[in-house]
Amino acid sequence: MEKFMSEDFLLTTETAKTLFAVCKDEPIFDWHCHLSPQEIYENKEPEDITSLWLLGDHYKWRAMRSFGIEEHYITGDAGHYEKFKAWAKVIPHLIGNPLYHWTHLELQRYFGIEEPLNEKTCDDIWERANKKIKEGGFTPREMIERSNVSCICTTDDAADSLEYHIEIAKDKSFKTKVLPAFRPDKALDVEALSFPDWVSSLNSVSGKTVTDFKSLTGILRERVDFFSSLGCRACDHGLTYVPFRRAKEDELDGIVKKALNGDKLEICEIEKYKTELLIFFGKLYAEKDWGMEIHIGAMRNNNTAMLNKIGPNTGFDSIGDDFVAHNLSRLLDSLETEGKLPKVILFTLNPKDNYVLGSMLGNFQGTGVHSKIQFGSAWWFNDNYDGMREQMKALMNLGVFTKFIGMVTDSRSFLSYPRHEYFRRILCKLIADMVEQGKYPADMDFVCQVVRDISFNNAVEYFGL
Amino acid sequence: MEKFMSEDFLLTTETAKTLFAVCKDEPIFDWHCHLSPQEIYENKEPEDITSLWLLGDHYKWRAMRSFGIEEHYITGDAGHYEKFKAWAKVIPHLIGNPLYHWTHLELQRYFGIEEPLNEKTCDDIWERANKKIKEGGFTPREMIERSNVSCICTTDDAADSLEYHIEIAKDKSFKTKVLPAFRPDKALDVEALSFPDWVSSLNSVSGKTVTDFKSLTGILRERVDFFSSLGCRACDHGLTYVPFRRAKEDELDGIVKKALNGDKLEICEIEKYKTELLIFFGKLYAEKDWGMEIHIGAMRNNNTAMLNKIGPNTGFDSIGDDFVAHNLSRLLDSLETEGKLPKVILFTLNPKDNYVLGSMLGNFQGTGVHSKIQFGSAWWFNDNYDGMREQMKALMNLGVFTKFIGMVTDSRSFLSYPRHEYFRRILCKLIADMVEQGKYPADMDFVCQVVRDISFNNAVEYFGL
Amino acid sequence: MEKFMSEDFLLTTETAKTLFAVCKDEPIFDWHCHLSPQEIYENKEPEDITSLWLLGDHYKWRAMRSFGIEEHYITGDAGHYEKFKAWAKVIPHLIGNPLYHWTHLELQRYFGIEEPLNEKTCDDIWERANKKIKEGGFTPREMIERSNVSCICTTDDAADSLEYHIEIAKDKSFKTKVLPAFRPDKALDVEALSFPDWVSSLNSVSGKTVTDFKSLTGILRERVDFFSSLGCRACDHGLTYVPFRRAKEDELDGIVKKALNGDKLEICEIEKYKTELLIFFGKLYAEKDWGMEIHIGAMRNNNTAMLNKIGPNTGFDSIGDDFVAHNLSRLLDSLETEGKLPKVILFTLNPKDNYVLGSMLGNFQGTGVHSKIQFGSAWWFNDNYDGMREQMKALMNLGVFTKFIGMVTDSRSFLSYPRHEYFRRILCKLIADMVEQGKYPADMDFVCQVVRDISFNNAVEYFGL
Repeated sequence: MEKFMSEDFLLTTETAKTLFAVCKDEPIFDWHCHLSPQEIYENKEPEDITSLWLLGDHYKWRAMRSFGIEEHYITGDAGHYEKFKAWAKVIPHLIGNPLYHWTHLELQRYFGIEEPLNEKTCDDIWERANKKIKEGGFTPREMIERSNVSCICTTDDAADSLEYHIEIAKDKSFKTKVLPAFRPDKALDVEALSFPDWVSSLNSVSGKTVTDFKSLTGILRERVDFFSSLGCRACDHGLTYVPFRRAKEDELDGIVKKALNGDKLEICEIEKYKTELLIFFGKLYAEKDWGMEIHIGAMRNNNTAMLNKIGPNTGFDSIGDDFVAHNLSRLLDSLETEGKLPKVILFTLNPKDNYVLGSMLGNFQGTGVHSKIQFGSAWWFNDNYDGMREQMKALMNLGVFTKFIGMVTDSRSFLSYPRHEYFRRILCKLIADMVEQGKYPADMDFVCQVVRDISFNNAVEYFGL
Repeated sequence: MEKFMSEDFLLTTETAKTLFAVCKDEPIFDWHCHLSPQEIYENKEPEDITSLWLLGDHYKWRAMRSFGIEEHYITGDAGHYEKFKAWAKVIPHLIGNPLYHWTHLELQRYFGIEEPLNEKTCDDIWERANKKIKEGGFTPREMIERSNVSCICTTDDAADSLEYHIEIAKDKSFKTKVLPAFRPDKALDVEALSFPDWVSSLNSVSGKTVTDFKSLTGILRERVDFFSSLGCRACDHGLTYVPFRRAKEDELDGIVKKALNGDKLEICEIEKYKTELLIFFGKLYAEKDWGMEIHIGAMRNNNTAMLNKIGPNTGFDSIGDDFVAHNLSRLLDSLETEGKLPKVILFTLNPKDNYVLGSMLGNFQGTGVHSKIQFGSAWWFNDNYDGMREQMKALMNLGVFTKFIGMVTDSRSFLSYPRHEYFRRILCKLIADMVEQGKYPADMDFVCQVVRDISFNNAVEYFGL
Repeated sequence: MEKFMSEDFLLTTETAKTLFAVCKDEPIFDWHCHLSPQEIYENKEPEDITSLWLLGDHYKWRAMRSFGIEEHYITGDAGHYEKFKAWAKVIPHLIGNPLYHWTHLELQRYFGIEEPLNEKTCDDIWERANKKIKEGGFTPREMIERSNVSCICTTDDAADSLEYHIEIAKDKSFKTKVLPAFRPDKALDVEALSFPDWVSSLNSVSGKTVTDFKSLTGILRERVDFFSSLGCRACDHGLTYVPFRRAKEDELDGIVKKALNGDKLEICEIEKYKTELLIFFGKLYAEKDWGMEIHIGAMRNNNTAMLNKIGPNTGFDSIGDDFVAHNLSRLLDSLETEGKLPKVILFTLNPKDNYVLGSMLGNFQGTGVHSKIQFGSAWWFNDNYDGMREQMKALMNLGVFTKFIGMVTDSRSFLSYPRHEYFRRILCKLIADMVEQGKYPADMDFVCQVVRDISFNNAVEYFGL
């Protein structure tokens, strides 16, 4: 029997251990996360482990609700110790869940705590962890530096002033690059009740006024220039499903005007607007040589009562199952036909589409960079041992695995970097098994380089940093 | 090499053997099956093994047809021995099929026969099995008691008189609880040619008359009360796909009237009716604190010629692939918004939707019971080693696995209880592997409790029995 | 650690080795491939390994593009050595990709080269391979005979004169049967711009004129008779998705006339035409007792710019995700209802549909042949270790595995026969694992027969050769 989450966790062969040894100390390039630039800038000391772990993590909230914990102990008014205790009660029940491994990797790496968390160890761990926090080293920047993160791309609205990025960049003592990533979901969400308000904020930040599609894209182009001036190399679109319905500019003008007027849009109008705006953005990203992330298939805010009570991004999202192949093909082809297809990273939330996306890549590859169209790592509900393995197997079977740009945290937490370690262990096991089973030659120089590249170098090369 | 289906079948490690040892003698709570209350009441001795195995099992029929056996030996006029012989010829060819394991578990557990069934052993097993049957112990109630079944929930039409349940309940010597489960599929199937006839039978049993949606739901509410008075704790809906189209009461009245009149309904009318009736039922189940099973994705009676010849439920069903995420989310949210979401158990026939359903749960959990929204065990075409494992892995990755309410037989056969043993072996292996591989602490007290709970206790707690 | 791709490649147990030993020398019946009858007839000696490997293989082209190689070295004007060198550069990066194993199986089996191909070994392998080619044995017929192929079914358009088949059949010294297989995709593709031209070629070859649906089907019936006269036993339809929309003959006449006139057809017209033509063909195939292959889900020519530049079948296809269950059920049922359902082999390009297709089979089985409705082996993007394993597992779980008609090359290359060896190794491992793990009795006579049957005999029996 293997020891629980030991040094050799998931590394079942000598080859796997050798591979992990050469990649574990590679830096982290976290090119997609939801860390707050404001929090990085303010760099406050956390109050206790509940502040670090439980006040902002909707993954944990969701698990607690699934156990049957009352909201009072989740997002409610319960005290920090009570919330920690509720979490300690739930955690042993998460057998097979990535939260179980993440939690214990974080306890091990940042707190030196090896014991499993449960109701019995709860009080002891609460005290030891909080003592450690009081000793220092747990501010956002300290956590980032301790985690050996060379670069972070945050997720920023197109209308964001990026003021915290500007401030962070001034601090030359902080070695980690913190770059904005352009995420204009609110520009796409023309059907949202909040669209006119968002346009107002865009007007404010730009000093201009959106009146039609042309003026909108004009301002957005300026925003892209502004992001670019601050070192932005990545952008991102979250799509419930991929729309594809072409339209002419005058139609688009009409749609923008209706939306600004608060009129209800038809589905086909929404799809036309989104399609053309995506194509507009894609061409712009190609000009900038940005990597365009497309995150497909999240069905958000399923629980209306809880949305009204505690807002979005609180753990009420799930996996959608719309069609993806045809429209995604048409969208990418429209850009390719104009010679303006940017680097694209395709993510699917529904693992049934691993092979659809994995095969889509091959239709639109190009030169100038290895694997221009990438298959994004296992995302959100798939960010677990099985999901990561399946995504990597699909990419192996369908593409050029050695050029995979690898893992992202996709997290709001400064403690989530051990997910990279988790990913690297799974990666090393996967490749080691191939070598051990005679499926790939034991060319250790080459496979060591592969795990180092996927851990770090490929993403650096891909985004041109 | 492991011995064929030995005592340690599927238990590849010492930990797996330890876990199985503590759960194998847990009782069975069979909260979803298709056993006939009439047969349980009548409690007849079977004629021979063909009566037990082949006269009513469309799983076996389907396998025989897939081999190329003529219908004469399947549902036709061939004699019992001939049918058994045909089955004995096919069974060795079912390598990797769950029928292979079920068949041999049943031979081992109920007949003490360890030899594999095939053409060579056919005559010997025919004689030994029939001799055993003649010695007694094979009536429905004896089979149920020998299988250590504490409680059975049958599947009963909303218009059923439940007369056999009433009779069975009077027999205090029979220790197993036999409860009705409410399955109003015929109430939902407004588009069926048989709908008006079914409404007539509902009128008869209720002594009232359906004239519109309100009178229909009034009667159905009384039926629910009646089922409840007999101890019903579970209900079930079989949906080809999940509809979602809201409607007002006057529209629904019109639809009911058209249907009773035998007029053809539009798709949107059918969907409106089904949606609103499901919402009506959901609220009612929440009042009763029943567990609402939703079985999604069976495409039934695909072979029209055979349907006309030998009727439904004869082995001509298969897996559908409609969308599920959006409508299911809306349906559950509609109930949650009114504060009337019952306990729900979601089953999918299409394994591609394991992650859609597994993530849907988390949107609508609640308090008062652990894991209020459950992911139902691998169903029908998935009820095999791989399918059960995949369903459990999905639940582990996405939810709180320890609170899983586990296995059901979903069977028409009194010999099918070894499927629980099969499930428990797979469960024990799955958890044991995690412990053995250092993915979960070797806290044997805890993991022993987990396998006992999933085998039996969780379902008892969940249904409140 | 296992040696790289040794004699025991993939055979992890003694049982697996035993099984492989009894099936490895079975002949190959390649009942679905894209080999050129003209090339078989002409039987030219290849110039070098680039001619054999790289001039016609869009799998390799796609992998090279995915790495970032310029088109110049793929389908462009680069020299043979340069192209080989580009491929040698890419190949080590295809870790986990079937091309990696195919490439090295081909080097081992046909060239006696055991070293892995990479930039370092490139020149040496280039010279040794070309020397071997110069020594002879690499013409199409020699490759086929060296590969122990008993029969090949090519893929032939309905308007094809089959002149090369006629010529090949005259050569009695060539032992391998080369039969046409009927693939009337161009007859189905009524919406294609090229449809009127294709009808002209059909008119030419038949000496008659298509004017309406009846005259079209009349000529197609003659083509089927002609193919049959040359020994055709298999036919094939490639469907992006399965249509199902019934229509009357006069409607169909109108559609044919519009199409011949070059008028744009509505989607519903296209679907009506395809549906009725498929039903027409199905009935005809039943009369001929042909096996009807249906390949579902390829989304072709996604990259318009490259289609315009280098044409179709150049590596720009991918996996579609349309619905399949309902329409496929209706299509097969329509034929079954008329008692005219032929033998059918269902292939899916989207592995998410493995269980939909695997369960569909069971609805329409029949007598006269084992497993009349077959689940085709893992196809194209699934033709790899995982895909083959998943397809076989699905078939095991849902059907009668021993009657599986097994592997096809689906290839344009005369070097692709080691894919059968690859398949057989995976098959033997799968069955051996069941035996070794006590999941199936160690009845070695039976399981040896099973692997021989799936390797060769089943297909021979099924197609009646």
